[in-house]
Amino acid sequence: MIIGLIGFGKVLQNLTKIIKSDEITFLTSTENRSHKTIEAIEKSGIEVKDTFKQVAIDSDILISANSPKNALEVAKNYGKFAKGIYLDLNNISPETTFKISQYVDNLVDGAIIGKIDSDNPSLYICGEQSDELLFLDEFIQTRKISDNLGEVAILKLLRSSYTKSLSALLIETTETAKQYGLEEEFFDILTLTEGDDFRQKSLSRINNTLNNSKRKSEELEEIIECFDKNELIMVKAALKKLNQ
Amino acid sequence: MIIGLIGFGKVLQNLTKIIKSDEITFLTSTENRSHKTIEAIEKSGIEVKDTFKQVAIDSDILISANSPKNALEVAKNYGKFAKGIYLDLNNISPETTFKISQYVDNLVDGAIIGKIDSDNPSLYICGEQSDELLFLDEFIQTRKISDNLGEVAILKLLRSSYTKSLSALLIETTETAKQYGLEEEFFDILTLTEGDDFRQKSLSRINNTLNNSKRKSEELEEIIECFDKNELIMVKAALKKLNQ
Repeated sequence: MIIGLIGFGKVLQNLTKIIKSDEITFLTSTENRSHKTIEAIEKSGIEVKDTFKQVAIDSDILISANSPKNALEVAKNYGKFAKGIYLDLNNISPETTFKISQYVDNLVDGAIIGKIDSDNPSLYICGEQSDELLFLDEFIQTRKISDNLGEVAILKLLRSSYTKSLSALLIETTETAKQYGLEEEFFDILTLTEGDDFRQKSLSRINNTLNNSKRKSEELEEIIECFDKNELIMVKAALKKLNQ
Repeated sequence: MIIGLIGFGKVLQNLTKIIKSDEITFLTSTENRSHKTIEAIEKSGIEVKDTFKQVAIDSDILISANSPKNALEVAKNYGKFAKGIYLDLNNISPETTFKISQYVDNLVDGAIIGKIDSDNPSLYICGEQSDELLFLDEFIQTRKISDNLGEVAILKLLRSSYTKSLSALLIETTETAKQYGLEEEFFDILTLTEGDDFRQKSLSRINNTLNNSKRKSEELEEIIECFDKNELIMVKAALKKLNQ
């Protein structure tokens, strides 16, 4: 079986390490790639084609994992050459998933949950053809949500609305605790009920959010737009907090 | 050493079970108590005085644990008779703590964190005399915050602002997930990163909050009032969510 890769960032680099089988060959191309990516491809030792068009033609499964803003363009350019499954792993909205489905026949909407280089990343998939990817469960925990395209994208947004709002709440509460000189005690007291890793996990959430607040704000805006039938009081407050 | 108890609810009933020593005698009174409380006192086998005034006079440590709204009245009535430490374990605001300190000489502000009948409840204390209660660490994990009265009350409010806003966030996110028929998947996907007990803990938070939403709203209002110098965007959103 041949798996073609459009993109060779952290996710796909790690995926080629996780999916190890004599029966699977990975293909990609160095066409228009950055110097850094070409180096990574050469180091990985996977097979290289001159063009991504050729990668798409030769593959049984084509995986797109680039930046969210390129996902649609990649689908338009190469989707028509993919004869098998087209697995989109970009962090895209349900709306973009539907747009992509107009250019791709056998689209599977997917997401890696958990850090790809951790012990337990999971692959969530949806779409009518997603059954054909369940063999990947041998290499990475693989969970089919449903036949309906877009549900993995919705699930990612639901997850994101929880984690980002939680970070905003942690930022606000530790700010207040600091004003009373009780930040350490605040973490201590919550550790009793929230678990031993509460302090470390919370500080990592707070720093990650404050260091990427523009991107996090944009993602919260995307969530509010997608779930526009719901009032989302907490998510809107989180957006306001991050823009403070 | 004699420890007098004003109140004999869940917290003090359990405390007499946790603090087991030949050198410690517990006292209380059945004066004006409910039938149910009198039964609990008789069952416990602790020493009974005719009046709470006598309990206060006879005790080295007097503990008040009633309802928050009675805390000040109890302090006014019996504080003047307490010759030793007066430990207030009621769930009161920093403001009420300061009012109580006008009627009580050796006030220690305290709180039990974690379920009192769990494996690991903790006693948080503050106030100049709180060092004298550190011997309790032999029976229940005891942590002195500082000499400053009111800091345990502030810490409780900080903790409460986190846990109650988190519940509001969980309510909102699961409502949205339900609309897409993805509630189970929402819990599954977060379990991967938030820990195996995420679903059970979250459902317990949601149910507990929805079943007591009036009281939880009042507590959020108290937090907003106490921390009035801070804007508290997330806590105000939580209040709005619970009042929806």
